[in-house]
Amino acid sequence: MLDIYDGIREDLLVVEQELKQVLETHNPLPETSTSLLNAGGKRLRPALSLLGAKFGHFDIKEITPLAVALELIHMATLIHDDVVDDSKIRRGAPTVKARWGNGISAHIGMFIFAKAMELISKYEAIPLISNVIANVSLKMCEGEIQQISASFDSGQGVKDYFFRVKRKTALLISASVQLGAVACGAGGNIHLPLYRYGNCIGMAFQITDDILDLEADQRELGKPVGSDLRQGIITLPLIYAFAKSGQRNRLMQLARQLDKDEEEVQEAIELIRDCGAIDYSFKVARKYIEKAKQELTGLPDLPAKKTLCLIADFIDARKY
Amino acid sequence: MLDIYDGIREDLLVVEQELKQVLETHNPLPETSTSLLNAGGKRLRPALSLLGAKFGHFDIKEITPLAVALELIHMATLIHDDVVDDSKIRRGAPTVKARWGNGISAHIGMFIFAKAMELISKYEAIPLISNVIANVSLKMCEGEIQQISASFDSGQGVKDYFFRVKRKTALLISASVQLGAVACGAGGNIHLPLYRYGNCIGMAFQITDDILDLEADQRELGKPVGSDLRQGIITLPLIYAFAKSGQRNRLMQLARQLDKDEEEVQEAIELIRDCGAIDYSFKVARKYIEKAKQELTGLPDLPAKKTLCLIADFIDARKY
Repeated sequence: MLDIYDGIREDLLVVEQELKQVLETHNPLPETSTSLLNAGGKRLRPALSLLGAKFGHFDIKEITPLAVALELIHMATLIHDDVVDDSKIRRGAPTVKARWGNGISAHIGMFIFAKAMELISKYEAIPLISNVIANVSLKMCEGEIQQISASFDSGQGVKDYFFRVKRKTALLISASVQLGAVACGAGGNIHLPLYRYGNCIGMAFQITDDILDLEADQRELGKPVGSDLRQGIITLPLIYAFAKSGQRNRLMQLARQLDKDEEEVQEAIELIRDCGAIDYSFKVARKYIEKAKQELTGLPDLPAKKTLCLIADFIDARKY
Repeated sequence: MLDIYDGIREDLLVVEQELKQVLETHNPLPETSTSLLNAGGKRLRPALSLLGAKFGHFDIKEITPLAVALELIHMATLIHDDVVDDSKIRRGAPTVKARWGNGISAHIGMFIFAKAMELISKYEAIPLISNVIANVSLKMCEGEIQQISASFDSGQGVKDYFFRVKRKTALLISASVQLGAVACGAGGNIHLPLYRYGNCIGMAFQITDDILDLEADQRELGKPVGSDLRQGIITLPLIYAFAKSGQRNRLMQLARQLDKDEEEVQEAIELIRDCGAIDYSFKVARKYIEKAKQELTGLPDLPAKKTLCLIADFIDARKY
């Protein structure tokens, strides 16, 4: 668990316990879902929902189903992502796809998502929660499908990228912190700044992820470097390099190429780095972090506010 | 559209229009879902929900989101099923798996399911609807996963089979007719008989499906005969034959065998037929049909009641 979670450590343990239990109940192959759970992860979405809830009448019983559901939705998309990428390793452990194949991955992803929806249906007194969760889940799939259908398309611009990142990552993160506040009855004036904060750290989170795919080493990342390039996913550094690289045509050719060998992947990475695309992308991420922190300024001075600030800093500085 | 749908033909056209529109909205690859829709299908679940609604204050606007959501959930599981089976053909058309691969299939299945949950979230005044739908969806996945994890296991009995059939098929069908009544405010005394009717025709439907997999010809079925045997799915005729066939050991060996050639599949089918397993299974299905009709006897004499009866007869007699 991250150090910065200090104020919600006990609460997160309750969520973790419940996550494990939910995943094992009525699951004919419990190991399919617990393997991913046990492999780790930051539990960013549950943590954010707990922190949002601290701005209302915090009640761990009230917030746990939402916190669990948010992590489940995230897990479901990871399992399906690994089918798309044919990934062998996630968080340093074998993927469901690698151990059980495509069919189990498809069904277990939907199983986990249905578990989330069942938990969410408990908030029947607050219809906004199920409305937002259903809508966000839909848009997450939209982002994923758009990513696949646009892969290897070097004609994409920054607008396509942000459209996708918002759907793939930012919407669920902003819903986490916003709905945490909603579930525990925080004042209406709190919802929007929390939502905007979540959106900004979500965007920064994915941009950083996309940079790390070109920068980090495999051991830190828990997966091979350059995997976006191999899959034809056009990320911010690449889009910047399309515009700025002196060897634009060669880079476009490499990006469009379906099967790249190790040398070609390395060549593309170097072309991207050489034109300052990494620095530029870090700057964009940092702008989102600054904006996220600004959103917090008007909120009551609770310990949760400080933790939200630390999470923004963590995303800004993260190296894995 | 089936002849027996006469009384709800206009209403089903409204549902069909809405289905098409829902599947195309915010879908970066609309063809992935409309290809399955356009390939046909009986629209049994929407039809049942409309018929259930006729026992209340029928309002097409009120019932359409539910009717659409029920078909979407069914479609989502079909798309994921085709990943498991590696099916090339469904309803005579190429599957999503065959045309777009495993990754798109996984995401589009969840996309369609999320669409269903978004539609269901509109029934915020009747929390029972979202509770039942989430729970049924969960159990459908449970049934599918159980089926995969128990494949090629010749030690299964009738109990395992019914556990699975209930989850895979009967629960969504019974929810369709029950929730149709709930959504349009039918009296509480109507819900349970409709639920039980749905459960019985659902069980009969799947048993008949499993018989047809051994009996029908490929043209009628829209997919190859004997596919359950090839995938190691242990169905009722096979379980009966394990107990009654004079060549029990040979049949068990064939059932357990991972890769069967065409000759071995035909040999297994003949062993199953020869011991009367098909007749026995048809009898079990017919018992469910009779029970389904009995459940209807106490209901008000509306045209919808007659249609429900015709649907039971259709399932009893169906050859595809």
